[in-house]
Amino acid sequence: MGEFELIERFFKQPAPPATESIALGIGDDCALLRPAPGMQLAVSSDMLVEGRHFFAGVDPAALGHKALAVNLSDLAACGAEPLAFTLALALPPERARAHAWLAAFAHGLRALADAHGCPLVGGDTTAGPLNLCITVLGQVPAGQALRRDGAQPGDELWVSGTLGDARLALRSEIALAPAQLAAARQRLERPTPRLSLGRALRGIATSCIDLSDGLAGDVGHILKASGVGAVIDADAAASLISPGVLPPSSETLDLRRHAVLVGGDDYELAFTAPASARPAVRAAARASATPVARVGRITAGAGLTVTDAQGQPLPGAFASFDHFG
Amino acid sequence: MGEFELIERFFKQPAPPATESIALGIGDDCALLRPAPGMQLAVSSDMLVEGRHFFAGVDPAALGHKALAVNLSDLAACGAEPLAFTLALALPPERARAHAWLAAFAHGLRALADAHGCPLVGGDTTAGPLNLCITVLGQVPAGQALRRDGAQPGDELWVSGTLGDARLALRSEIALAPAQLAAARQRLERPTPRLSLGRALRGIATSCIDLSDGLAGDVGHILKASGVGAVIDADAAASLISPGVLPPSSETLDLRRHAVLVGGDDYELAFTAPASARPAVRAAARASATPVARVGRITAGAGLTVTDAQGQPLPGAFASFDHFG
Repeated sequence: MGEFELIERFFKQPAPPATESIALGIGDDCALLRPAPGMQLAVSSDMLVEGRHFFAGVDPAALGHKALAVNLSDLAACGAEPLAFTLALALPPERARAHAWLAAFAHGLRALADAHGCPLVGGDTTAGPLNLCITVLGQVPAGQALRRDGAQPGDELWVSGTLGDARLALRSEIALAPAQLAAARQRLERPTPRLSLGRALRGIATSCIDLSDGLAGDVGHILKASGVGAVIDADAAASLISPGVLPPSSETLDLRRHAVLVGGDDYELAFTAPASARPAVRAAARASATPVARVGRITAGAGLTVTDAQGQPLPGAFASFDHFG
Repeated sequence: MGEFELIERFFKQPAPPATESIALGIGDDCALLRPAPGMQLAVSSDMLVEGRHFFAGVDPAALGHKALAVNLSDLAACGAEPLAFTLALALPPERARAHAWLAAFAHGLRALADAHGCPLVGGDTTAGPLNLCITVLGQVPAGQALRRDGAQPGDELWVSGTLGDARLALRSEIALAPAQLAAARQRLERPTPRLSLGRALRGIATSCIDLSDGLAGDVGHILKASGVGAVIDADAAASLISPGVLPPSSETLDLRRHAVLVGGDDYELAFTAPASARPAVRAAARASATPVARVGRITAGAGLTVTDAQGQPLPGAFASFDHFG
C-alpha cells in the first residue's frame, strides 16, 4: 500500500463536509479553517516516540486515543475548544503493512476526535522509525485564554481528577493485583483531556497547566512564568491516587508521594485561583462533571516547598521528568 | 542539557514580543494566534526523517532551512501568507549533546523564518531517532485560497523556477562536475518557497500545488481533485533544469525528462490558468520576481499524457515518488 492509499484508506473521513469551522479538510496542500469572529487560535504540537512514550506492544486503539488526548489536554489547559488537528506519522515498513494495527490506531484516534468535534484535517505519512506528531488547533475568546503566568501570592493550587495512577502502571515497586494494574493502565493509556473544566475555568483560574511530567515539575512551570513560589501538600496530592489502583496505607506513603509529584502522564489540570473564588471553582467542577481538589497555595517567594499533611517540609528534590535528563 | 534548557538555549526567541498576529509565543501549553479579520487559517504539517528525507551528514543549517521551506511551500501553494510555525523534534542523545549541530540547525531554521516573518511559537522535544515535524500556519483571505480542485479543460499548465535539479544531486547516472553538483545540492538542500508568487496568483490561477514528488505525480493530484486530464510536454519541462546543473544535450534527454517528471524535491509551484490569463500570470511572475514557464495544458479527459516536443506521446508510466512504494 502506498502513502496516498494509506491516507485514503485509514485516515480520510468519508466525504468530509465543509463545516462552520472547517472550510477544507484532508487532501490539499493546506487545510483551511475558519475560527469564529473574536476568537484567538490556540496551537500545540506533541510528538510521541515508540519506546519512549509508548511500548511497541501497546494496544493501537489506545495509542490513537492517547496521541490525540495529550494534545487536547494542552487545549484544555488554555481553556480553548478544539477545532481540528493534523497528524504526521512515520511508520516502519512492517507497520505500514499491518492493516489491522493501522485500522485500530485510526479508530482510537477518530473516536476521541469525534467525541470532541475535532476532525483530522491534514498531515503527512512517511517511512521511518515509529513516530506520531499531532498538532491540535483550538479557539478561545480573545484575551480569555488560561496561561501559566497569572498565579498570584495567596492563590490556592488545585488539581483535577486523580494523580499518580499512570506512574504506578509504568513501574510498580509494589506488586499491584491484576484489577489494580488494569485500572492503572487504563489511566496511563486512555487519559481524559479536561476540556470542559478548562473552558469552565475561564475568568476564574489565574493560571493553568496540564500535568504531563508530574505535579512538582509542572507546577514549577507556573511558578517560573508567574514569578511566585508555592507550597504543595504532598499527602493531599497522594490521596488523589485512585483507590482502585493503590489504596492509602502508611507503608506506601513514600511511593504514593513520589507517584503524584514526579510520576507524570496524568493529563489532569493544575490551576490556581484566589481563595475567594472557591465557590466559583466548585461550580465550574460541577458544571463540567470533573472532580477537583486543593493541594497547595501560592506564596510570594520563589521555588516550590513540598510538605507532609502537618505542613512539615519534606526533604529531597522533586525533579520532574525530563526527556534528556 | 535537559529538554527545557535545550528549548530555551537554541529555539526560544529572546523576549518574543507579542505582535499583531502572535498573542503568545513559546512557553505555555498553547501558542495563541490572532488571524486578521476576514482571513481563513491555512495549516500544513510535514515530517522529515533522517535517512529518508536527508542524510545523517547533511549541513545542519541547510536542514533547518529545508525543514521549514517545505512547509512554507505548502502555504505558497495555497496563496497564503505565513503566520507562525511549531517544531517537534526527536533527537538521539548524541545529537542532543551536539551543541554546534543544534545551534547551526536553529540558525538555518530561524534565518528562513525571519525572512518570511514566520516565528517559531511552540512545539516539543523528545529523545528518539532523529525526526523533525513542522506545522506551519498561515492566513489567506476567505474564499481566495488556491486549491487543487479548480483546474478546467483548456487551462494552461505552468510551473515556477527550475525543475529536476534536486534529483540530479541525489542520484546522478552521469558524473556532474563539482560546480554542477554544488549547484544541484544547493537546490536540493535550500529550496525556495514561492510565497510571493503564490499570493500573486490569487484570483488568477484556477488550481495550484507545490512540487515535492515530481511533476507527473503532483500534477496527477490536481487532475484527480479537479476531475480533468492533462498533457505535459516533457521536453519543455526538461528544459527547466538549471543550465548550471545539466546543460541540454540529446544524450541526456531521457535522464532530464525523468528528473523533472518523477524526481521530486523541487518545491516549485505547478498551477493552471485559462489561456486568457497569460498576461496576468506573466504580471504575477514579474511582481514576485519568480520565473514561470508553460509546460502543458488541461484536457477534458482523465489521466496524464506525457509527450515529446513534437507532441508525440512518450511510452512508460511516470509514477511519482511514494514513501511506501
